[in-house]
Amino acid sequence: MRILLANPNTTEGITALMAAAARATAAPGTEIKPVTAGFGAAVIGSRMEMVVGDYASLALVAREAEGCDAVIVAAAIDSGLRAIKQMLPVPVVGLTESAIHAANLTGGRFGLVVSSTRTGAVMREMVEGYGLGSRLAGIRALGSDASAVYGDLEGSARAITTAACQLAEEDLAESVVLIGAVMAGMPARIADRVPVPVIEGVSAAVVLAEGLARLGLRKPALGSFAPPGKRSVTGVDPALAARLDGAG
Amino acid sequence: MRILLANPNTTEGITALMAAAARATAAPGTEIKPVTAGFGAAVIGSRMEMVVGDYASLALVAREAEGCDAVIVAAAIDSGLRAIKQMLPVPVVGLTESAIHAANLTGGRFGLVVSSTRTGAVMREMVEGYGLGSRLAGIRALGSDASAVYGDLEGSARAITTAACQLAEEDLAESVVLIGAVMAGMPARIADRVPVPVIEGVSAAVVLAEGLARLGLRKPALGSFAPPGKRSVTGVDPALAARLDGAG
Amino acid sequence: MRILLANPNTTEGITALMAAAARATAAPGTEIKPVTAGFGAAVIGSRMEMVVGDYASLALVAREAEGCDAVIVAAAIDSGLRAIKQMLPVPVVGLTESAIHAANLTGGRFGLVVSSTRTGAVMREMVEGYGLGSRLAGIRALGSDASAVYGDLEGSARAITTAACQLAEEDLAESVVLIGAVMAGMPARIADRVPVPVIEGVSAAVVLAEGLARLGLRKPALGSFAPPGKRSVTGVDPALAARLDGAG
Amino acid sequence: MRILLANPNTTEGITALMAAAARATAAPGTEIKPVTAGFGAAVIGSRMEMVVGDYASLALVAREAEGCDAVIVAAAIDSGLRAIKQMLPVPVVGLTESAIHAANLTGGRFGLVVSSTRTGAVMREMVEGYGLGSRLAGIRALGSDASAVYGDLEGSARAITTAACQLAEEDLAESVVLIGAVMAGMPARIADRVPVPVIEGVSAAVVLAEGLARLGLRKPALGSFAPPGKRSVTGVDPALAARLDGAG
Amino acid sequence: MRILLANPNTTEGITALMAAAARATAAPGTEIKPVTAGFGAAVIGSRMEMVVGDYASLALVAREAEGCDAVIVAAAIDSGLRAIKQMLPVPVVGLTESAIHAANLTGGRFGLVVSSTRTGAVMREMVEGYGLGSRLAGIRALGSDASAVYGDLEGSARAITTAACQLAEEDLAESVVLIGAVMAGMPARIADRVPVPVIEGVSAAVVLAEGLARLGLRKPALGSFAPPGKRSVTGVDPALAARLDGAG
Amino acid sequence: MRILLANPNTTEGITALMAAAARATAAPGTEIKPVTAGFGAAVIGSRMEMVVGDYASLALVAREAEGCDAVIVAAAIDSGLRAIKQMLPVPVVGLTESAIHAANLTGGRFGLVVSSTRTGAVMREMVEGYGLGSRLAGIRALGSDASAVYGDLEGSARAITTAACQLAEEDLAESVVLIGAVMAGMPARIADRVPVPVIEGVSAAVVLAEGLARLGLRKPALGSFAPPGKRSVTGVDPALAARLDGAG
Repeated sequence: MRILLANPNTTEGITALMAAAARATAAPGTEIKPVTAGFGAAVIGSRMEMVVGDYASLALVAREAEGCDAVIVAAAIDSGLRAIKQMLPVPVVGLTESAIHAANLTGGRFGLVVSSTRTGAVMREMVEGYGLGSRLAGIRALGSDASAVYGDLEGSARAITTAACQLAEEDLAESVVLIGAVMAGMPARIADRVPVPVIEGVSAAVVLAEGLARLGLRKPALGSFAPPGKRSVTGVDPALAARLDGAG
Repeated sequence: MRILLANPNTTEGITALMAAAARATAAPGTEIKPVTAGFGAAVIGSRMEMVVGDYASLALVAREAEGCDAVIVAAAIDSGLRAIKQMLPVPVVGLTESAIHAANLTGGRFGLVVSSTRTGAVMREMVEGYGLGSRLAGIRALGSDASAVYGDLEGSARAITTAACQLAEEDLAESVVLIGAVMAGMPARIADRVPVPVIEGVSAAVVLAEGLARLGLRKPALGSFAPPGKRSVTGVDPALAARLDGAG
Repeated sequence: MRILLANPNTTEGITALMAAAARATAAPGTEIKPVTAGFGAAVIGSRMEMVVGDYASLALVAREAEGCDAVIVAAAIDSGLRAIKQMLPVPVVGLTESAIHAANLTGGRFGLVVSSTRTGAVMREMVEGYGLGSRLAGIRALGSDASAVYGDLEGSARAITTAACQLAEEDLAESVVLIGAVMAGMPARIADRVPVPVIEGVSAAVVLAEGLARLGLRKPALGSFAPPGKRSVTGVDPALAARLDGAG
Repeated sequence: MRILLANPNTTEGITALMAAAARATAAPGTEIKPVTAGFGAAVIGSRMEMVVGDYASLALVAREAEGCDAVIVAAAIDSGLRAIKQMLPVPVVGLTESAIHAANLTGGRFGLVVSSTRTGAVMREMVEGYGLGSRLAGIRALGSDASAVYGDLEGSARAITTAACQLAEEDLAESVVLIGAVMAGMPARIADRVPVPVIEGVSAAVVLAEGLARLGLRKPALGSFAPPGKRSVTGVDPALAARLDGAG
Repeated sequence: MRILLANPNTTEGITALMAAAARATAAPGTEIKPVTAGFGAAVIGSRMEMVVGDYASLALVAREAEGCDAVIVAAAIDSGLRAIKQMLPVPVVGLTESAIHAANLTGGRFGLVVSSTRTGAVMREMVEGYGLGSRLAGIRALGSDASAVYGDLEGSARAITTAACQLAEEDLAESVVLIGAVMAGMPARIADRVPVPVIEGVSAAVVLAEGLARLGLRKPALGSFAPPGKRSVTGVDPALAARLDGAG
Repeated sequence: MRILLANPNTTEGITALMAAAARATAAPGTEIKPVTAGFGAAVIGSRMEMVVGDYASLALVAREAEGCDAVIVAAAIDSGLRAIKQMLPVPVVGLTESAIHAANLTGGRFGLVVSSTRTGAVMREMVEGYGLGSRLAGIRALGSDASAVYGDLEGSARAITTAACQLAEEDLAESVVLIGAVMAGMPARIADRVPVPVIEGVSAAVVLAEGLARLGLRKPALGSFAPPGKRSVTGVDPALAARLDGAG
């Protein structure tokens, strides 16, 4: 099985971090194909960059998805997720989408550790958009930008641990989700210091992508995730235009 | 006052239709500045085109908003709305966002007339995203594409009237919202045939944009709608890149 | 355009305060017609007074609405709002109803500053009644009665600023609504000290009333806001009885 | 024990109907004291009449509650309920409030039979206001005014039975609530023709009022149901003014 | 009238405590028949014990309900409640189910005092399961096990009072529910020290059971609470097997 | 990896059906260990049998889980799920829990096909209990008992297909979940006749169980899913008693 790991941020180092975590989780026989957006934000950290990232993500996957059995949208804000689910006949999952579904499956309500409070507001919208808003026990912010976390993973581990423990002890979260592409690999660093399960998106996305691919579900022929048919577009990435040309 | 009416679809004819409806509603002294996306979808009708439209909208407004006192994102799917609210220091409203807020202000729950059932699913997500999901009495589809409605407004009036009456009589909607940029001007055609108020987005957006501009609210300095500061991006529209360069 | 500004409290001084704020916001050509309840509570501050105020409001507007293009129910608890929407063929908005819709249109969740915790409970019910309960980030109380705030607006500004900042910084509100008729004009005093938009009801109600009036929506002929027809009532204010007599 | 049965409608015949049903349900030793509003609507059937009824109800109970151990607000729209709960140190329940709590206690979601669709919209708001909106399986209207139902109880029984059965069979309601003061005594007429429990407000209110009175709960000293203290009001019913004078 | 008070915990002392509280509340002529589970947990305090308790409760009631007019499932976690509602033709209520309905009937949102935070998570699920999740103002834990509270009721009274006051003063709860079978009789100890009504489950269950029994509602013939008909089971308590044998 | 497939119903034939479907889905190297309840209901089809099944499930898994890396509670009503999650240090998933999470991951709202309307009410409670109530587009019943479906899978396929298509075409479900242990293997029979993805619980549970096991999440030490510690129980299955004896 081949899984496309598509990073809508342009930072290759983060792609590498996530690819390593993905390979560590993947089943024997699963190949991870990491790709990075060709344009857009280095590290998406604002609503404006989210829109750019959605488009960069859609174009990237349009170009790279051939021959893949599943796709992981590899960013905390699940850039372009629903559009990519529509575009492809294979399973597509996002980091935050995957992590919160995995958390919900451990039972009980879950909490989120986010980089900044700005991110927290966006994450709440996302969790509600996936229908799991009632399961959100709390959101704690590290008080720094995603870029800053990426720049100092070891130092960040302490702050992340503190936030995770607060979620468990004060907000009654029965599991904790670390939000962010840069959190790939972080649970292993801190799991022994947090009294509830700690989950991050890359590993959750890998196992869910593999699992959904094995279910072999059909591509919808009806509804908002069915192929769009032949649409009229101009001035967009050629790979994307090809996918709006009426075939499958 | 000058209001930017930004159409994220590339169809100039729809921009003209909306500009006419906007001018018919605008207060004396309000200038409507209609602009049309330079690339993207002719008529957004799929999740994939929504992502393209978000980006085309953000770039368009980045380029054209100078000197404007308010901005209307002139499409049913409010392309790039939240990112544009973040980008600018002036009020920004979308067609659907405006129409449903106006409907809610008439009192009672409201229903939506949409072009296709595919659109209905997306609209439900949008209404829930704006926090008004509990006020949605029902959604009725015309069973055609937005492009088809645009191509035959007179013939569509009958189907729209039927759907609106069903929402009022069967779903107990106390007002009806016609979803779609192409619905600009439609309420006047059918108001006498529907027993409850009929609202569409362009006129609602104009009065709300004018009104919010007169409130003179400050630009947030905190939160997810505060300016993003200096962000690192590559390969994006220059007007948009300029706005991610750290100034305001 | 003429807008009726109907104060269901009997305190003329508050009516004057609100009328001044309304005129400062109104468009050129809009006349504000302030009226004050002829009986009832000086300053509504309990559930019992809310019921009295609803009735006083309905009677007041029944008497004074002739020739008006829109009506503002000028109290924080939007006295008799839904009944007045039913009674008249023109737009009717309340202070809190208007303020929270304006807040929601700036994007993001909003917080409320209220006078007492007692008011907070009632406000939560109202926000939920308007369908925007999921957008409420928090409620902070000043710890005093509405009368006390009215008696010392300058001193209250400090406490209001503190509460507003807490809502923004701790509760992640992306805008703040100051609840209370007496808050008219307050945002201008404190806007530079609060990092997010500050909104109050009178100015929001004026722009929304003007805007809705310009939409020219029809009066419902069906549903709970349609005219009541000829109803049998005794012992009520004559102006109100006239409106329950079967005409329009 | 003495229970005040306060009818905010002025129709004595409905008071008598409800008093008979109340006495048939009351425990030995419970005295029912029926009273009827001295002014207001004959049969509340519009939002305007609801406001009049709230005030008439509050004044009526202010005058008549002395020496009573509990109060039933005897109308479908629970006129003035929360204000009366604040006003008195004894339990106060409404017809619809009681019926839906009883229904919820039988287990499963419940449906409502209402007189007109206009009433249905108001009832939905009320059920949501009591926090039980998620338990509402459906609402079916008889298509007539409350007055018409009162005028022909025998004929209405057939229509009511049909609506109740539809709620059970199509909307999966596991119990049915008949909304309306005039439904007192109706369940006995139709219970054998409906496959799920049928509940109406007067009998539910009697048993809940008796039960809550026996719990002997304290009067709140804090919160929105605590006594209002000394308030300044003018031109209101003297009994009501007395209760806003600072005692109890 | 005879009410079965069925304790799904095996601790006779708690049954006796609850029986005393039940008798103190019961109407003249109501006989309380206390019974204790024959197997299972001494004091249910984990999800595992909840499942055991559900089964022990169902078997206990199957055996003991004959000749009873109502049943109280006498534990905080309402063991087997819905199954027992299905099993019997008489009203069945649980402690927590009863207490929160009584609290909601006093008006306003309510708070819960629970023994441990572990219990708090379970209680939130239960309140949401009954449809009253939106009425939950807060949950405060005593930080001890239910067994510990039972072992020191006098000492616990102080901690319970503190938690109750915090719910009223900080979380704006307008009434407080003490969760736990061991709280029977506790409100009387602390009512004068808490500014809002304090409610516990045994007394609430008694008055609700009596009241519902007097309504004489029919046994459902349709829906998930209708009798199961003849089912095939093996190896279960004989009294329970008899009730799954096709008769009523 | 070894996965315990625990059937809380006593019907071995259903266990075999599910084991075959599980093996068809499982990854190479995954061993499925099917076990069947030693007592209880043949086919759980009532709330009473649900309680019996919860207990039978808990006892069964207590006895059989040793050496397993994950557990599937193999019944539509996820018997004892939360208690088993608490009991074990490995992932535990239920059929319906798994199916609805998989459905939600395909994007869009989902619909349920259930055997009887009685089941539908219970399923709605379950979906809401997992936090995904807002994602439920509709529920359609086959109008027969789970036993009947099991007795005629081929004939049932037509009715299931009809219900699935109605969910997609009328209720706008973007995927369909077939509820019931007996639905194992059914999607393959009908996938080509339904225009949206069709999902059932056994295959979804297998891939989710495998995936969660690979994440290697820690066992909670805090919260309602942490081990219960030493609890006092009598008269329960010895394997279950051993697990309540204080060891992890």
